[in-house]
Amino acid sequence: MTTAANGFTLGSYLVHRLEEAGVGHVFGVPGDYVLDFLDLVTQSSLKWVGTCNELNAGYAADGYARLHGLGAAVVTYGVGGFSILNAVAGAYAEQVPLVVVSGAPPTLRRQTGAMMHHLASDYLQQFDIFRKVTVDGAMLLNPQTAPDEIDRVLASCLAQKRPVYLELPMDLAQAPCRAPQPLAVRRPPASIPEALAECVAEAARRLNAAQHPVVLAGVELPRFGLAETAQRLIEKVELPYATTVGSKSALPELHPQFIGLYQGALSRPAVRQEVESADCVLALGVWMTDFDTGGFSVKLAPGQLISANSDSVRIGFHTYPGVRLADFIAALEPVLTPRAFAASHPAHPMRMKDCFVAQPAAALTVRRFFTRLDSFLDDSMILLVEPGDAVCAAPDLYIEEPENFIAQAYYLSIGYCTPAALGVSLARPGKRAVVLTGDGAFQMTAQEVSTLLRQECPAIFFVINNRGYMIERKLHADGPYNDIADWQYHRLPEVFGAGAVTRRVTTEGELEEAMAVALTERHRLVFIELCFPEGDCSAALGALGEKFHAMSAAKAAP
Amino acid sequence: MTTAANGFTLGSYLVHRLEEAGVGHVFGVPGDYVLDFLDLVTQSSLKWVGTCNELNAGYAADGYARLHGLGAAVVTYGVGGFSILNAVAGAYAEQVPLVVVSGAPPTLRRQTGAMMHHLASDYLQQFDIFRKVTVDGAMLLNPQTAPDEIDRVLASCLAQKRPVYLELPMDLAQAPCRAPQPLAVRRPPASIPEALAECVAEAARRLNAAQHPVVLAGVELPRFGLAETAQRLIEKVELPYATTVGSKSALPELHPQFIGLYQGALSRPAVRQEVESADCVLALGVWMTDFDTGGFSVKLAPGQLISANSDSVRIGFHTYPGVRLADFIAALEPVLTPRAFAASHPAHPMRMKDCFVAQPAAALTVRRFFTRLDSFLDDSMILLVEPGDAVCAAPDLYIEEPENFIAQAYYLSIGYCTPAALGVSLARPGKRAVVLTGDGAFQMTAQEVSTLLRQECPAIFFVINNRGYMIERKLHADGPYNDIADWQYHRLPEVFGAGAVTRRVTTEGELEEAMAVALTERHRLVFIELCFPEGDCSAALGALGEKFHAMSAAKAAP
Repeated sequence: MTTAANGFTLGSYLVHRLEEAGVGHVFGVPGDYVLDFLDLVTQSSLKWVGTCNELNAGYAADGYARLHGLGAAVVTYGVGGFSILNAVAGAYAEQVPLVVVSGAPPTLRRQTGAMMHHLASDYLQQFDIFRKVTVDGAMLLNPQTAPDEIDRVLASCLAQKRPVYLELPMDLAQAPCRAPQPLAVRRPPASIPEALAECVAEAARRLNAAQHPVVLAGVELPRFGLAETAQRLIEKVELPYATTVGSKSALPELHPQFIGLYQGALSRPAVRQEVESADCVLALGVWMTDFDTGGFSVKLAPGQLISANSDSVRIGFHTYPGVRLADFIAALEPVLTPRAFAASHPAHPMRMKDCFVAQPAAALTVRRFFTRLDSFLDDSMILLVEPGDAVCAAPDLYIEEPENFIAQAYYLSIGYCTPAALGVSLARPGKRAVVLTGDGAFQMTAQEVSTLLRQECPAIFFVINNRGYMIERKLHADGPYNDIADWQYHRLPEVFGAGAVTRRVTTEGELEEAMAVALTERHRLVFIELCFPEGDCSAALGALGEKFHAMSAAKAAP
Repeated sequence: MTTAANGFTLGSYLVHRLEEAGVGHVFGVPGDYVLDFLDLVTQSSLKWVGTCNELNAGYAADGYARLHGLGAAVVTYGVGGFSILNAVAGAYAEQVPLVVVSGAPPTLRRQTGAMMHHLASDYLQQFDIFRKVTVDGAMLLNPQTAPDEIDRVLASCLAQKRPVYLELPMDLAQAPCRAPQPLAVRRPPASIPEALAECVAEAARRLNAAQHPVVLAGVELPRFGLAETAQRLIEKVELPYATTVGSKSALPELHPQFIGLYQGALSRPAVRQEVESADCVLALGVWMTDFDTGGFSVKLAPGQLISANSDSVRIGFHTYPGVRLADFIAALEPVLTPRAFAASHPAHPMRMKDCFVAQPAAALTVRRFFTRLDSFLDDSMILLVEPGDAVCAAPDLYIEEPENFIAQAYYLSIGYCTPAALGVSLARPGKRAVVLTGDGAFQMTAQEVSTLLRQECPAIFFVINNRGYMIERKLHADGPYNDIADWQYHRLPEVFGAGAVTRRVTTEGELEEAMAVALTERHRLVFIELCFPEGDCSAALGALGEKFHAMSAAKAAP
């Protein structure tokens, strides 16, 4: 196939647009239908990062996108496309911008409906399925129209912060096409000016009149890049603020105005008291998910709530459609009356991390570990917590720097963090990914430790070995299905590659030594297996379990 | 919730129907939305087999279903459902009967559209997606109608030999429902009698008049349990027969009438000669996939072809709809004129496995390994071959006993075999699963070796360590994307659990020792890593690579 005079092919056009959008690394697994495209990827400035399987590529690209603003994964048809699907669904749920590029059988075979390998039923099936977990997509079957489709699909991804899908038949990767035109400056959809003005005026009136207002900072702030804007408003007006699990660390937690993490009945008492007794709550980009609301136990009087989300604002019992979160925050800031935080919070201390004195011979417990972890973490570390005891206990850790905390706090797919740490490490080479995971979650995607080693990512792993799915043991009557195979976790890295430092820890003294090594060995992957007493768990999970059992008992009562 | 007077709940009803259908083992991963159902599973005769992740559960259930007639996998909502999808798509493509049971958020939350964890977008999304990779399914939201839906969905699975989907909200697992009624005897859909008679008469006329007829036995024979019926016809009439990769070992290969495996231009010359010079080819349940046809290189004159598939028969250029494969074979057998195989094949020897004399100090090569493997395999072993060099070279292995060969020869999803070996081992405890896999494929799903150990399955693993995706290196210009992490494969089992025997083999002498140990240690998992010289591959893959490059060169010529 000859090349167009401009030298562009569909494959190189797509590569060019990904480069232009700032993508640096592309994650995936090769397969024959996508090799022609991968040849172009490897000849470009994009860095190819092969993972052990496609689901892991999706998780890695998700972790990368959360910090880098856009992630990309490349897979082959069918076996690759369907294997990555759960990661794409997770990115959809959590609003993470992710481009999935799938190879496909050559055009001629598609036209005849031939039974090509990796084809599960028909040639529309994969696109049909991806339409349900993406906000835009295209089958790039026509080199004439494909450049426009690529531009539209990538723009949708960046505007809506959700995954998109591009399917490229193997023979068209090298098909000539027009050269890329300068990208139009894409402004986000604007608010309706009159709606914005009316909405901001009402919100300001309520907030300025309130005696005890509080800001609840939600997950859309980091997703739409609005954390700093929100922080400016909060600091200027000196409002107290809380975060949710989903938005944890979006705003700094070692800050005088930070009152803590609000999670309904699961919050610390002081946080719950302040948020629920506020006479006006300004919720910025908050999602009312089951986990963020402590099982729908939040008590926020709707009449006193101003809830701004990405494209609408609700005040009391009425809604302003067409008001964008970014515009709302920007317009609200200048019309709010500054307050004196100290006057309303005379006894509110600056948060400090707890002091921890190790008892070297003492058996390590989960509670003590979390206290110790809090002082171990610093601004150069990005903590990733896996669903399970890790995400339950995470609210008690203080993270100073925004973006230093990553969790799938809504979709809660176990196995996410190990591959996501790969994406996080490559997106932020100056920082270290710290993975806090349970044994059950770790077993899901453990092989990606080998890719972290291969890419020389100096991640730190804390693997909680408690012999099974502890969160299920605590929240439901225990059953044999919660048992898992008993791996020697700390020996895995040496099998997967070279260069790791590994430890198996059972006492506080051993934990101290392991943590000291982790800080010394700054350029190596450090893998620490934590062994806890039978049935041990964090205070947070223990409390959650008690609440669940109380609820079940209440239901069972006649 | 009180129980119905009959004691049945939706969960126990479903368990009962699975037991009745002969399911013995259920594979899956627990999650809170499915624990109430799993409590009922573990209280029943069904044996719960937890896997490390959901994709692997799907593969295991697929391997189980191929031998046992029905497989079942249980997952939680969203994160579980989307993770298993590729295994379900594979079962759909390859016609394997698989029941997927997914938990779901409680009814009340569904009704209000609450943002529950694991929910990617809305409460119809998962069902919508599964509809595209299954032949039937139901959201069991109404205890009144759910029993009928369960019965219909399971019947569809068994009749169509393809996956089905059942979604059970967590609160309804314990909802009372009617007792199961005796299952109506389900006859497969019958052929149209007149069509059958006309079709069989024409087929018999052609076959009886032919001088050199040949039978091509396809993948639908084992899938619909028709291998023995076909074998009876073939033996009675003394017809020569060939198989395809997809149907390999469906009929015995150490049989005087077996002429070999036909794969178009990739066949052995004698097989190709006999099949392509036949004056009548009786194709029974053959799929014309790219791999089975050697890249669509089969040369079967359509005018001389009788092609019977599950629900229609094509003779020459006309088709008989409404003629079922089972009825066709049964009606054809008595009207065919017996022949004397020996008369038409005077020089056709009984197949013998090649004699192999090890040269102990010689470096092991792929070709020599496959020759040796052929004599290693016996009737007590079920060979699973992974896409890659393994499935390319497999046609050269002789398998005597039907069902002793398993491959995803059409869907070709790498990573299938390791978890599938779990299902195979549990479905056939009297036999040993022998897994032949490449390093790239093995890395996809390696953790399931731990479940094989936990379940005490005495599988034998041969892991081809050739440092990457060899088939891609051979079929396409090589690129850095074909490199993978360099694991110490033979050391993995000791990390995953106890009881394995492991070997790393580089010479023929070491292979002999490892194989001897594998035969001696009949009750242990034996894991053998095979190290080959750089770039080494089987004769079959070498030939395939040459054909591909010749085709590419021809296309590139001006």
